[in-house]
Amino acid sequence: MRIEELDTPIVIIDLDRMERNIQKMQAYCDQNGIRLRPHIKTHKIPAIAHKQLAAGAKGITCQKLGEAEVFARAGINDILITYPILGLLKLDRVAMLARQVRLTICADSATGVEFLAAAGKKAGVPIGVLVEFDHGNDRTGVRTPAEALKLARQVLSSPDLEFRGLMSYPCKPQLGEYLSEARALFRDAGIDIAEISVGGTSGPLHAHELDITELRAGAYVFYDLLNIKAGMCTLDEIAMRVRTTVVSQPTSDLAIIDAGTKTISSDQYGLSGYGHIVEYPEALIEWLTEEHGMVNFSRCSRRPEVGEVVTLLPNHTCIVTNLHDELVGVRGDEVEVIWPVDARGLVR
Amino acid sequence: MRIEELDTPIVIIDLDRMERNIQKMQAYCDQNGIRLRPHIKTHKIPAIAHKQLAAGAKGITCQKLGEAEVFARAGINDILITYPILGLLKLDRVAMLARQVRLTICADSATGVEFLAAAGKKAGVPIGVLVEFDHGNDRTGVRTPAEALKLARQVLSSPDLEFRGLMSYPCKPQLGEYLSEARALFRDAGIDIAEISVGGTSGPLHAHELDITELRAGAYVFYDLLNIKAGMCTLDEIAMRVRTTVVSQPTSDLAIIDAGTKTISSDQYGLSGYGHIVEYPEALIEWLTEEHGMVNFSRCSRRPEVGEVVTLLPNHTCIVTNLHDELVGVRGDEVEVIWPVDARGLVR
Repeated sequence: MRIEELDTPIVIIDLDRMERNIQKMQAYCDQNGIRLRPHIKTHKIPAIAHKQLAAGAKGITCQKLGEAEVFARAGINDILITYPILGLLKLDRVAMLARQVRLTICADSATGVEFLAAAGKKAGVPIGVLVEFDHGNDRTGVRTPAEALKLARQVLSSPDLEFRGLMSYPCKPQLGEYLSEARALFRDAGIDIAEISVGGTSGPLHAHELDITELRAGAYVFYDLLNIKAGMCTLDEIAMRVRTTVVSQPTSDLAIIDAGTKTISSDQYGLSGYGHIVEYPEALIEWLTEEHGMVNFSRCSRRPEVGEVVTLLPNHTCIVTNLHDELVGVRGDEVEVIWPVDARGLVR
Repeated sequence: MRIEELDTPIVIIDLDRMERNIQKMQAYCDQNGIRLRPHIKTHKIPAIAHKQLAAGAKGITCQKLGEAEVFARAGINDILITYPILGLLKLDRVAMLARQVRLTICADSATGVEFLAAAGKKAGVPIGVLVEFDHGNDRTGVRTPAEALKLARQVLSSPDLEFRGLMSYPCKPQLGEYLSEARALFRDAGIDIAEISVGGTSGPLHAHELDITELRAGAYVFYDLLNIKAGMCTLDEIAMRVRTTVVSQPTSDLAIIDAGTKTISSDQYGLSGYGHIVEYPEALIEWLTEEHGMVNFSRCSRRPEVGEVVTLLPNHTCIVTNLHDELVGVRGDEVEVIWPVDARGLVR
């Protein structure tokens, strides 16, 4: 089957590019003595995680419990959940998962640690804990090394938990300062920090200069326009593309494609437009509704025809994956595999 | 089962509110002699469409062929697709659908009309066509009544098509001027415009003042913050809410909820923030990542605790529905039904 036989809009993965991306990030980590623990949120497909593991990755990262359950069922036995899991309704699920895989979960609050201890007790197996700190993302994570130490002590005081170290996201230059302060504080307290885990595909900008043990990169497997903006890849390395049809051309400058927010999401994060059209690089995707992409072709030397299929590179691949039930793996223009997105939509 | 027994994040539909919303829009249409053809994109659930039909709606509106197929299988036999359907890979599907239901599809290009004629020929049943025009949305639709007339003539020249009238979206005051010009032009050409169909939950602002026959409202079934901004509803009428847990509180003003772009999308369309928190109306959801909602509580008189469940009203309900496999119907605090979102993610 060839890609021209696939109806649009459809999300295609260039397998050659994806495999090169997997090798490249793995090589970076290997050269710098960093363990790579890919974040599966970008692909949500067990077969791709197995390719990452085969290339040398040590376990995987999930964001949600439901994702971890899917990958555990697919035979992956070392899983880190980098999200503060809590709430009595998740207790049994965490306990069951802890009995199946080497499980590590992060925490950034006393409530979170208490929950994990209760789950570990229920499981009868200690749950590994990374204390999450924030070094400039202004999201989850305790803000000071002193708070991290306090939580680490809480973890160490529970027989149902195992303190495995610290984690943060992403990996900014100011991480170094935070880490030296934390290391000194923990050393004085006699607590070993076995793991320093940081996240993000922009990891290679700084990770090798810092004293970290583990990188949780996700987007690198496909890359996207946000990664280009961050200086992490070129257009030719983006493995995810959306085939989309021009369905209307109401004026000479405006054409409408069948990729809207249901296909590529409204994520922008500071980018202008909603994607890059390979065949019309000067075109600007100005706005989206659910099924319509409004494209301004005024800066292009030619105009597409109604019915023409064009190729779009998305702003943010992770969220695109989450919108689709299947991703189609292609080798050149031949379809090699159609993967169900097994962990799609698992927000709980 | 009570709502407290549902894990978060989860999307809840208040059935009392939804039923009142269905009655209210139906009453408006009945009073004004307008046929209501609800757009199912907001709920994507056949059981809800059947409630709308039972209340008096005449058929449904879908945006994509895949949605229409789902609702046809659920026994709905009058379907309008308000999207320019084209491309050889959709030909057989359109033909099969045309043999099952009274099918109408819009077109705004010669290519679109040619495609529908080919599908009608294949079906052996004429396909109904509405010519789409634009009266100020700057999306799909021919721009002038003369272009609409040209397409209507193309439709009329095909034995495999049936010209059913004109459609547009949404329903702005300037529609009146467009329509009088179009009516005069079509009258001179001896062509009857049986149907004038307009879309949008903001229809009641103008539809009764204009000479239209059909309203395709969608969002009114649940309403959302965009509808409040448009003056179409109050907070108390919003039937969709997202139960979400505070999972982290790293600073005194910042707390993180477990609703991010995978749960409520990044749709803003000019609104500030990403939703309204019922229990903390002064809180501002400042930014989102896939699983994190960053909420500024600095203007609130109290702070939530980690583990606390709060209730969020989303910016845009249609896109929220599309992210979830199930919507939970509740009556007060009791769960009455769990609906699979049967037409979720059907972009083709």
